[in-house]
Amino acid sequence: MSDDLKAFEGVSTSTLTTVLLKKGLRNVWIRGARPLGEAVRIVGRAFTLNFIPAREDLAVPEAWASPISTRAALEAAPEGSIVVANAMGVTDAGVFGDILCARMVKRGLAGLVTDGVVRDIAGVKATGLPVWAQGTAAPPSVAQLIFTGWEQPIGCGGVAVFPGDVIVADADGAVVVPTKLAAEVADLAVEQERLEAWIVGEVERGVALPGLYPPNAEARARYEAARKTP
Amino acid sequence: MSDDLKAFEGVSTSTLTTVLLKKGLRNVWIRGARPLGEAVRIVGRAFTLNFIPAREDLAVPEAWASPISTRAALEAAPEGSIVVANAMGVTDAGVFGDILCARMVKRGLAGLVTDGVVRDIAGVKATGLPVWAQGTAAPPSVAQLIFTGWEQPIGCGGVAVFPGDVIVADADGAVVVPTKLAAEVADLAVEQERLEAWIVGEVERGVALPGLYPPNAEARARYEAARKTP
Amino acid sequence: MSDDLKAFEGVSTSTLTTVLLKKGLRNVWIRGARPLGEAVRIVGRAFTLNFIPAREDLAVPEAWASPISTRAALEAAPEGSIVVANAMGVTDAGVFGDILCARMVKRGLAGLVTDGVVRDIAGVKATGLPVWAQGTAAPPSVAQLIFTGWEQPIGCGGVAVFPGDVIVADADGAVVVPTKLAAEVADLAVEQERLEAWIVGEVERGVALPGLYPPNAEARARYEAARKTP
Amino acid sequence: MSDDLKAFEGVSTSTLTTVLLKKGLRNVWIRGARPLGEAVRIVGRAFTLNFIPAREDLAVPEAWASPISTRAALEAAPEGSIVVANAMGVTDAGVFGDILCARMVKRGLAGLVTDGVVRDIAGVKATGLPVWAQGTAAPPSVAQLIFTGWEQPIGCGGVAVFPGDVIVADADGAVVVPTKLAAEVADLAVEQERLEAWIVGEVERGVALPGLYPPNAEARARYEAARKTP
Amino acid sequence: MSDDLKAFEGVSTSTLTTVLLKKGLRNVWIRGARPLGEAVRIVGRAFTLNFIPAREDLAVPEAWASPISTRAALEAAPEGSIVVANAMGVTDAGVFGDILCARMVKRGLAGLVTDGVVRDIAGVKATGLPVWAQGTAAPPSVAQLIFTGWEQPIGCGGVAVFPGDVIVADADGAVVVPTKLAAEVADLAVEQERLEAWIVGEVERGVALPGLYPPNAEARARYEAARKTP
Amino acid sequence: MSDDLKAFEGVSTSTLTTVLLKKGLRNVWIRGARPLGEAVRIVGRAFTLNFIPAREDLAVPEAWASPISTRAALEAAPEGSIVVANAMGVTDAGVFGDILCARMVKRGLAGLVTDGVVRDIAGVKATGLPVWAQGTAAPPSVAQLIFTGWEQPIGCGGVAVFPGDVIVADADGAVVVPTKLAAEVADLAVEQERLEAWIVGEVERGVALPGLYPPNAEARARYEAARKTP
Repeated sequence: MSDDLKAFEGVSTSTLTTVLLKKGLRNVWIRGARPLGEAVRIVGRAFTLNFIPAREDLAVPEAWASPISTRAALEAAPEGSIVVANAMGVTDAGVFGDILCARMVKRGLAGLVTDGVVRDIAGVKATGLPVWAQGTAAPPSVAQLIFTGWEQPIGCGGVAVFPGDVIVADADGAVVVPTKLAAEVADLAVEQERLEAWIVGEVERGVALPGLYPPNAEARARYEAARKTP
Repeated sequence: MSDDLKAFEGVSTSTLTTVLLKKGLRNVWIRGARPLGEAVRIVGRAFTLNFIPAREDLAVPEAWASPISTRAALEAAPEGSIVVANAMGVTDAGVFGDILCARMVKRGLAGLVTDGVVRDIAGVKATGLPVWAQGTAAPPSVAQLIFTGWEQPIGCGGVAVFPGDVIVADADGAVVVPTKLAAEVADLAVEQERLEAWIVGEVERGVALPGLYPPNAEARARYEAARKTP
Repeated sequence: MSDDLKAFEGVSTSTLTTVLLKKGLRNVWIRGARPLGEAVRIVGRAFTLNFIPAREDLAVPEAWASPISTRAALEAAPEGSIVVANAMGVTDAGVFGDILCARMVKRGLAGLVTDGVVRDIAGVKATGLPVWAQGTAAPPSVAQLIFTGWEQPIGCGGVAVFPGDVIVADADGAVVVPTKLAAEVADLAVEQERLEAWIVGEVERGVALPGLYPPNAEARARYEAARKTP
Repeated sequence: MSDDLKAFEGVSTSTLTTVLLKKGLRNVWIRGARPLGEAVRIVGRAFTLNFIPAREDLAVPEAWASPISTRAALEAAPEGSIVVANAMGVTDAGVFGDILCARMVKRGLAGLVTDGVVRDIAGVKATGLPVWAQGTAAPPSVAQLIFTGWEQPIGCGGVAVFPGDVIVADADGAVVVPTKLAAEVADLAVEQERLEAWIVGEVERGVALPGLYPPNAEARARYEAARKTP
Repeated sequence: MSDDLKAFEGVSTSTLTTVLLKKGLRNVWIRGARPLGEAVRIVGRAFTLNFIPAREDLAVPEAWASPISTRAALEAAPEGSIVVANAMGVTDAGVFGDILCARMVKRGLAGLVTDGVVRDIAGVKATGLPVWAQGTAAPPSVAQLIFTGWEQPIGCGGVAVFPGDVIVADADGAVVVPTKLAAEVADLAVEQERLEAWIVGEVERGVALPGLYPPNAEARARYEAARKTP
Repeated sequence: MSDDLKAFEGVSTSTLTTVLLKKGLRNVWIRGARPLGEAVRIVGRAFTLNFIPAREDLAVPEAWASPISTRAALEAAPEGSIVVANAMGVTDAGVFGDILCARMVKRGLAGLVTDGVVRDIAGVKATGLPVWAQGTAAPPSVAQLIFTGWEQPIGCGGVAVFPGDVIVADADGAVVVPTKLAAEVADLAVEQERLEAWIVGEVERGVALPGLYPPNAEARARYEAARKTP
């Protein structure tokens, strides 16, 4: 991970969406992308893939050997990037299976996020690649989808994703942080995490939420005092 | 739990829906409310919350400090009650996160049932609050929802819920028992559980289902005989 | 399992859908049928059940005692067959509960596949019957469905299923192999599994996918050579 | 139309659903079946057709020449009957086009009701056959559907339809009246129409609805008096 | 119509949504509410009704005589107001039929907007009441819905509606203008209409859109000049 | 229209989908694209536009002035082409309104096909541009969508559309004919229309459908004879 993304490692997607909403961005969470298997947190820059619906004369296994193929795309993705695939929410054909996921791990990619599904879920889990998707399906992508290219602006799960956007994904799903807002959002999110940790402690002590969350002036003063007291 | 609800502890939601259907009530199971994490069974009276769609000028984090807020509502809920939240089936914004769930535990509330989702799933699970929901999402409620009040009749998962209705929730979801039918339903359900336990035993012995489930006269006689033989 | 189905035990549903697509069949995977609990692989011939929507005068528990009942149907299913139930995708009433699943196990049926849901999930899991479904719901089938008969052609999860079709189900869901294609598909699938196992090994060695998957002439030659070298 | 159905000609589907609900039947209106073109009212007995999802090896135009074809089915339908086709709500392939509709008119069938769509809408309208459907689509039925037979119990638009059930269709859609309730429902519906006509007159006179609709004792007395005064 | 709403009569819902979006409000158009019959434009203040899902013991025709009934609600609505009914998007039961619509006309209400449907469409159209809805269905509201009260904040078609909000409805549907923004939005909308009328004239003259719509500095100067030249 | 497309003018989309299905292409009809207003038939080459979901920092009216805007795209479309816009099925924001449609007419474009909706329906109809869409909505495209470019492969209504594909649209919707199949499909479709016209005549004479549609050997012989007899 590049250094400018380090700060995101300590913040949850829940916190990021709160911060982004305060900046006016409500539509940043990729619908349908749930962690498959044990949830971890990954951070990286988006490498985008685009699919469109299948047409029978084009959607054949031979298409996998075309120069514009998912195979070629994966070779072009920078190490550490997160592959974000627009599968148009298709749930009856898997965009990737074990072989492509295994290659992604070999190439050092950080993970896969899609609004579709994967296939050969046992094999995919065995590769260790972190995946966020709607689930699994047996049929190959060409049963429903044609790949059209990479590193274009895409829609994924109802959200705009541009190549290079910061992606953070954890147990609550995957969030897009626009590049130009990344530094500011990271700073605000770190502070928000700190505040919420203090509030959780107050709740543990039995404090009621009205006036505490969000904090009124009195609560904020106590928080500021606590921050200064190590 | 109040004493009049004790009988419900031993009956499953499957049994309750069978009994209610025999009384003419088919629409009592809250669609979309699945147990998050290990399923337990909870019983309690409904404390209802209502949300409507967000409008950008009102759906801001500042709304959380309004007198009509989810924070204020939770302070008003009786100990042992089950919070039932109408989120209109929204799955891309969490009605509650870890902080509100932690407060619910502190206040002795029995659980949360919603047709929407929660956020910060790791934090919510850590509180130990039993939750029935569609899953999890990172965005805060204000990204999609405005809270309008508590203890009104609501729709939740396609079912009418009135304040004080009996709620039973387990691995098969959450069921509403209208207050005025509660005592009669509890009695019938306890007997239905007893009958089905006997039928399971018969199936174990190799008895075929036609004539056994539901029992014909002969099977019912055997059941009655078995009941008398301790 | 009859001998002619043995070959299917070693092939995944992912591989089967790839082979069937090459034969022109894209629509063979039953949408909505996910394994409940730990995924195993089962193989068997389809025994079909059909449901239609409920009408209140007919959809009553008494219907369970009718000669055309799910109870009677289960007695008619051959040992080793897989029950495939068209529930029209209904998710708010369970087609079967613990008692029917227990009887299926007693009768030696291989599993249950449905585009609907089951009920009393804890009881169903306790029977050990392998089940593929959308999940669980508390209400009985008659809350939404009427059973109309068995061993008819049905639709299930958007796929045509004829009595006697070969069903293979595993972690990626359930696939229908038309009877008349079964032998040919089994042969092709076994070979496809062998090829993909070799490709996985190549990926492990660091080979990039373009030219390897699908294999170009050079890669295929290497594969053929490897096959001959034990 | 047979004489026993005459009474239905004067009652609307709105009135029929009100009467059926009072008899405990809430699920009798076929979802998705809207009148195409100018709405008329038709009354007849259901002649049912059943479709399942297409499989590419079977769903070919040649299937139209099979003995189990929609063509053969239409020849078997009694004059005056209403064809009710279960298309599983499919909206991207038309169950019938102009040629089949023209033959239905020649055979004296009263109309077509489906939860799917028709094709060649201009041609269908030219035949004059009354049609209730979701709309129109260009593709032939075999693009999505296989025909499996006629005169079976079917689901159509979420409603159970048995061969011979009474169907009434008008501008508000199509309603199923179970055969055994037909005579009683017709009588009640005729009376309900009479009452509502009187209420409309009262509203015209400026009477407010509370106490009038439904009528309280005073209003009912006035209604009874009005009935006796020609 | 009160004088402060006069300005809205000359602006389309398309223009209003453009103006509201510039003020940061994107979610103001009621999904599913289409004009039934010939489209007119109506302007008025929202009088809100709320429905929740039906439960069989409560959703009976007798409920229509309850003090909390749609009948009572209509008597409470101010002349000139627009009834906005939250039907939760239900399309298989009509919230209102001809009798209630006839009473609304008698009481001088301006129209009905709902995310559900009406029933007895022929009768409703005969009353002349302007209606925006998803369409028509034969079943009465109690087949699916229970009425819970009036003049509460509601959701309708995915939009928040508060009692007294300004509603404008025309051929493109129905839009909610928050009360506190009404005056400012009306002024901006009138000016926007004027600008777009000028642009349409320019397009008629053959001017290309880049630079014209939205206008660049040169185009805006020409527009300002044109405004001053009568 | 270029000369090579002349043959398509006489064939319906229903006939085209039948012919394409015989060539193995089932997925060629654009779901959701219905004719708005009086249906005509248009034929032309696809000029594709692509939209993705909106993000609040980018989806502002100012975006309409960007070099990558729908305004710029329309200037690039060849005369006689049909604009096909991927709106991802969005129905709550109109891709185009009256001003853009007016410009399309000025530029000699043949029509607009989208899986989304238009806005200002009255104004759009006044331009006379033939439009196939899901309907109308008041909000501007930026309320939900961002435009990303033109003349790329797109999905529209679940169908792949490549720049230059032949589009035929009529009362039954819009169909895509892949460029490389266009000549062959046109020939087959003209012959299919001729055959079906003869069959309609036979049905008028009272001939039953089995054996006639599709024609068996005897019927085909009669058809061939009729073709030779002017």
